[in-house]
Amino acid sequence: MRTELCERFGIEYPIFVFTPSERVAAAVSRAGGLGVLGCVRFNKAEDLEEVLKWMDENTDGRPYGVDVVMPAKVPQEGSAVDIAKLIPQGHRDFVEKTLADLGVPPLPEDAERNEGVLGWLHSVARSHVEVALDHPIKLIANALGSPPVDVIEQVHKAGVPVAALAGSAKHAQRHVDNGVDIVVAQGHEAGGHTGEIGSVVLWPEIVDAVGDQVPVLAAGGIGTGRQVAAALSLGAQGVWMGSLFLTSAEYHLGHRKPSGVSTIQEALLRATSADTVRRRIYTGKPARLLKTKWTDAWDAPDAPEPLPMPLQNILVSEAHQRMNESDNPDTVAMPVGQIVGRMNEIRPVADIIADLVAEFEETTRRLDAIRDR
Amino acid sequence: MRTELCERFGIEYPIFVFTPSERVAAAVSRAGGLGVLGCVRFNKAEDLEEVLKWMDENTDGRPYGVDVVMPAKVPQEGSAVDIAKLIPQGHRDFVEKTLADLGVPPLPEDAERNEGVLGWLHSVARSHVEVALDHPIKLIANALGSPPVDVIEQVHKAGVPVAALAGSAKHAQRHVDNGVDIVVAQGHEAGGHTGEIGSVVLWPEIVDAVGDQVPVLAAGGIGTGRQVAAALSLGAQGVWMGSLFLTSAEYHLGHRKPSGVSTIQEALLRATSADTVRRRIYTGKPARLLKTKWTDAWDAPDAPEPLPMPLQNILVSEAHQRMNESDNPDTVAMPVGQIVGRMNEIRPVADIIADLVAEFEETTRRLDAIRDR
Repeated sequence: MRTELCERFGIEYPIFVFTPSERVAAAVSRAGGLGVLGCVRFNKAEDLEEVLKWMDENTDGRPYGVDVVMPAKVPQEGSAVDIAKLIPQGHRDFVEKTLADLGVPPLPEDAERNEGVLGWLHSVARSHVEVALDHPIKLIANALGSPPVDVIEQVHKAGVPVAALAGSAKHAQRHVDNGVDIVVAQGHEAGGHTGEIGSVVLWPEIVDAVGDQVPVLAAGGIGTGRQVAAALSLGAQGVWMGSLFLTSAEYHLGHRKPSGVSTIQEALLRATSADTVRRRIYTGKPARLLKTKWTDAWDAPDAPEPLPMPLQNILVSEAHQRMNESDNPDTVAMPVGQIVGRMNEIRPVADIIADLVAEFEETTRRLDAIRDR
Repeated sequence: MRTELCERFGIEYPIFVFTPSERVAAAVSRAGGLGVLGCVRFNKAEDLEEVLKWMDENTDGRPYGVDVVMPAKVPQEGSAVDIAKLIPQGHRDFVEKTLADLGVPPLPEDAERNEGVLGWLHSVARSHVEVALDHPIKLIANALGSPPVDVIEQVHKAGVPVAALAGSAKHAQRHVDNGVDIVVAQGHEAGGHTGEIGSVVLWPEIVDAVGDQVPVLAAGGIGTGRQVAAALSLGAQGVWMGSLFLTSAEYHLGHRKPSGVSTIQEALLRATSADTVRRRIYTGKPARLLKTKWTDAWDAPDAPEPLPMPLQNILVSEAHQRMNESDNPDTVAMPVGQIVGRMNEIRPVADIIADLVAEFEETTRRLDAIRDR
């Protein structure tokens, strides 16, 4: 399974995996794909620096990338403390009451308190780019579309291509006009920030709009080799995956039970494809999340309207930390796509990748038989 | 492009097309697919009888089917007049005010007034089945899932297989348990009644759940041969299409302009994939519709909650007729899928089918090259 992206990036398979876990990212790169490390969780540049050093030592010289979260328009800026002042007390009260109602324990005494995910702030995302460019990264992706044009120029100057997510052909064209090198066409099914157009309609629409200018990666709903074949059928040059690797053996974030499975993974393993919702409660922009008692609480008639980005995430950040560090899978906060229905066991990254490739090949032979019958 | 369904139905291609237009249905069957005529618009059994006679004379002996709308649970029953009494006056006032605000003209003096689409009533849908079984139909499909078990038995006794639409694996399994012979897996992208799970996730999920018991057709977002290839990649034995043929040259329903293009078609031709909404305002159950000034009016803060099926359609039926008989494409009422963004010209059915088949073959050769590179 090879497309021109394989030569361009020096990878075996055109499988790009976004993950907040450096262990998963490194394992993907070692298995022949391109691991893309999400940076949004690093509030301090030095923490990212340390993790990228680890990546350099654990990828066997294989290529990897990073993912930042950077709106094209610079949003409200300032320190966490300044911004926190903009959050209405009613919202804080709702969060506290909900956590109490759901029986979510406080953080352990020794836990490092998270002051909100500052990666949503423009200044912090810029520091991620600075740090990453000092490492041999092969791709910078932006989860919120085109980065500002000066950032694209800075990244290009370092010889690194820029990828941007798009949920419509219009956005994809705008990204290309801004100088983006690879468009990730992300359908409604995807976890995290996502639009309303389903993958099977969106992917070829974006390929037809910009595919003659840049390669298009397909995202949203991919978890098997059959789905990889569907994506390549629809004109994508490769796939961009995320959710599926949250239940890989290498994923190490969040509270772990003695079995080695984390609370979040426990929640993901039992969910069906119907157990997600698309809401503004995680970041302020619509994002697909695992449906839990936490998302239910925000759907109740007494719940307040979510705040705009970046306020909403600062509001709920400590709540997320408390829920994900607890041992109750009913109350985790986790972005995930509809493919969660197929995430039913913990498996090593290398096995997942090998199966995607084998099933892709099998699928093409099945299609050949239908064609030649 | 052949699967076992081709031998089973005596068709050239596993392309099933649902359409309310007998001219489109007949043209699909003549072109090698299976035309499936929607019956819901026939309030009187004798009108359906007349149209099926026309089908028998215009399909060159090729197989065709019919589609009825029959909930498994028998809903509120009675004559249109009885049921009309259950509609709150506030809802009627809202519809009248909206039509006035939007400048929708009254029906022409000589127009046959529609007393609500009674095909939603169980008794009427049963009469459709009775009438259809006196014709050489090869399939009865039900748009609302399993028909009642006694209807399935009646249809089977006549040697005709039953197809049912499903938006989740659970529903698909229930249909098979009830005796349904073919499951149509219909993703979020589809026009008309549709669920929340995107096609690329739903199709293989339903194939894995029931594909060893019955063939699965893929629906929701199919408009090109690449999308047919994606559907077959994901394990479907064929495709079920609808929206795409609303802009076929043979589609003859609704007010036509001197150019021969209808008001509805004019609205569809200019819409993008982002111009649909999924709302309960058409029938009382969530259905994907073309976004127009009419759907916008129902999204306004002063709009009432839609009524349950079958009341909602009786409430809006004359309004739909008035809008669709007018010459203003801004105010049509029309179910359509996200594939509407690709419906940009009026084309004969035979050309559409030929292109689907040719592009499917081209796509499989492209995949072969990716596999063998």
